[in-house]
Amino acid sequence: MAPKARIDAALSSAIKGAGAQPAPKQLASALDYATTPGGARIRPTILMSVAQACGDDQPGLADAAAAALELMHCASLVHDDLPCFDNADTRRGKPSAHRAFGEPLAVLAGDSLIMLAFDVLAEASDPAPKRGLELLRILAKRSGMPMGICAGQGWESEAEIDLRAYHMSKTGALFIAATQMGAVAAGQEAEPWEELGARIGEAFQVADDLRDALYDADTLGKPVGQDDLHGRPSAVTEFGVDGAIRHLKDILSGAIASIPACPGEAQLAHMVRAYAERLTPVAPAHSRA
Amino acid sequence: MAPKARIDAALSSAIKGAGAQPAPKQLASALDYATTPGGARIRPTILMSVAQACGDDQPGLADAAAAALELMHCASLVHDDLPCFDNADTRRGKPSAHRAFGEPLAVLAGDSLIMLAFDVLAEASDPAPKRGLELLRILAKRSGMPMGICAGQGWESEAEIDLRAYHMSKTGALFIAATQMGAVAAGQEAEPWEELGARIGEAFQVADDLRDALYDADTLGKPVGQDDLHGRPSAVTEFGVDGAIRHLKDILSGAIASIPACPGEAQLAHMVRAYAERLTPVAPAHSRA
Repeated sequence: MAPKARIDAALSSAIKGAGAQPAPKQLASALDYATTPGGARIRPTILMSVAQACGDDQPGLADAAAAALELMHCASLVHDDLPCFDNADTRRGKPSAHRAFGEPLAVLAGDSLIMLAFDVLAEASDPAPKRGLELLRILAKRSGMPMGICAGQGWESEAEIDLRAYHMSKTGALFIAATQMGAVAAGQEAEPWEELGARIGEAFQVADDLRDALYDADTLGKPVGQDDLHGRPSAVTEFGVDGAIRHLKDILSGAIASIPACPGEAQLAHMVRAYAERLTPVAPAHSRA
Repeated sequence: MAPKARIDAALSSAIKGAGAQPAPKQLASALDYATTPGGARIRPTILMSVAQACGDDQPGLADAAAAALELMHCASLVHDDLPCFDNADTRRGKPSAHRAFGEPLAVLAGDSLIMLAFDVLAEASDPAPKRGLELLRILAKRSGMPMGICAGQGWESEAEIDLRAYHMSKTGALFIAATQMGAVAAGQEAEPWEELGARIGEAFQVADDLRDALYDADTLGKPVGQDDLHGRPSAVTEFGVDGAIRHLKDILSGAIASIPACPGEAQLAHMVRAYAERLTPVAPAHSRA
């Protein structure tokens, strides 16, 4: 099965389980709403690509890890969109979860998706308990404090921001989780895979900064100009548009160079190059910047 | 070490780890604030009592399980207090987390405490991986959807409530987690311990309904009359005050009768009796009901 189909099947099975009767119907619908049709599923696709590059000898565990990572990412989007953070009306081209279901169910949907991420992973871990525990540890650490996406969001409430820690946790964390969890699901050590994840995350952040500055809301399917609006640090503010595009290309070259030796090394490098092309934005004619 | 000291030490070590530098300082403070000085620590104390009754042969795992369960409970309190739910100004006699730190940090503190709960448990599981995975599964299921505290809160957004599922998930879930996790941490099966947890949870809910109806906010350290205010189902509305007190005593007798055979059976029964006395409220002279 292709990675995309494996990820979708694992996610769909998880969401169906979370809505098993008796369950409060609206919250069950909110979980489905927040995870489908989904975006590019970039993080679980990277995870799956790394697992395949490392031999993928426990595909059930890789599937669960990919689903867990995407559930965590979707949870973070639901909470980030809340009125007290970005107050976003739209997400992935449709109303944000709190616009569609109200704020209480959006908070609960985020919480439930987090629990489900750990549940799915723990459920799949019996055939390889030590790998499963390591996967759970990576997911928890890269989601929480002080190294995960919660910490990343937390930095935005500080008067003085540690920029390195901010970027590493805000965007880098789940990409590091993606590469490390892919490797661990296939029986490899986590540590050598940190740099690849960190660099892909950095590239993704710069690309996101560029899109936020260059595109309009219709093209992007979510509000734009958010970095300026919230006074958040951005590569475009720091380097300008051309400088940020050059910076993005450098980071992606470094990412490819950092891939650890493994059977599927060449294919992985190919995947990162493909992402590089998709990530690098072309300034549209009606650019806002 | 006494259970209370073990729980406090495990919690304190977890919170300290979550605030390790570099970490956003306010969010780190919010995690500490939301977990200290704490309430009665009832759920982890029950967990620890069951683990001890079952031999407690992996005390490090029992400590981590107790800390994880209390972290999850504290997370749920922080989120339940948010403006979109109870909008509570106080908790445990001090300002609620969102009153003290603002809403963004309160949402993030809840999320971070959830991640930390799973992290602490996964970190402690290496000496007994299969027990660890089972503990993680129980914690995830009794916290999320469709059987956990998220589901319980989710029922409050439904026009038609399945009362049994509502109570079992809203209050019962973390007590079932407490008895089952205590047993599993000490190498026993989870299933026989479900009934004890469910009954203690039911008793706790009835006692909470009674306190909400009978006490004033100063005595309770949190807002009262919330059930009436939010139109929530309550044993006092259903049975009246005297009927609810009788119901509470029946449930606790059933709880004692349900304790599975184990080395510390008699001591556990003693603990449940002690809770029964503490739980049964005496209507104060200036009763609001």
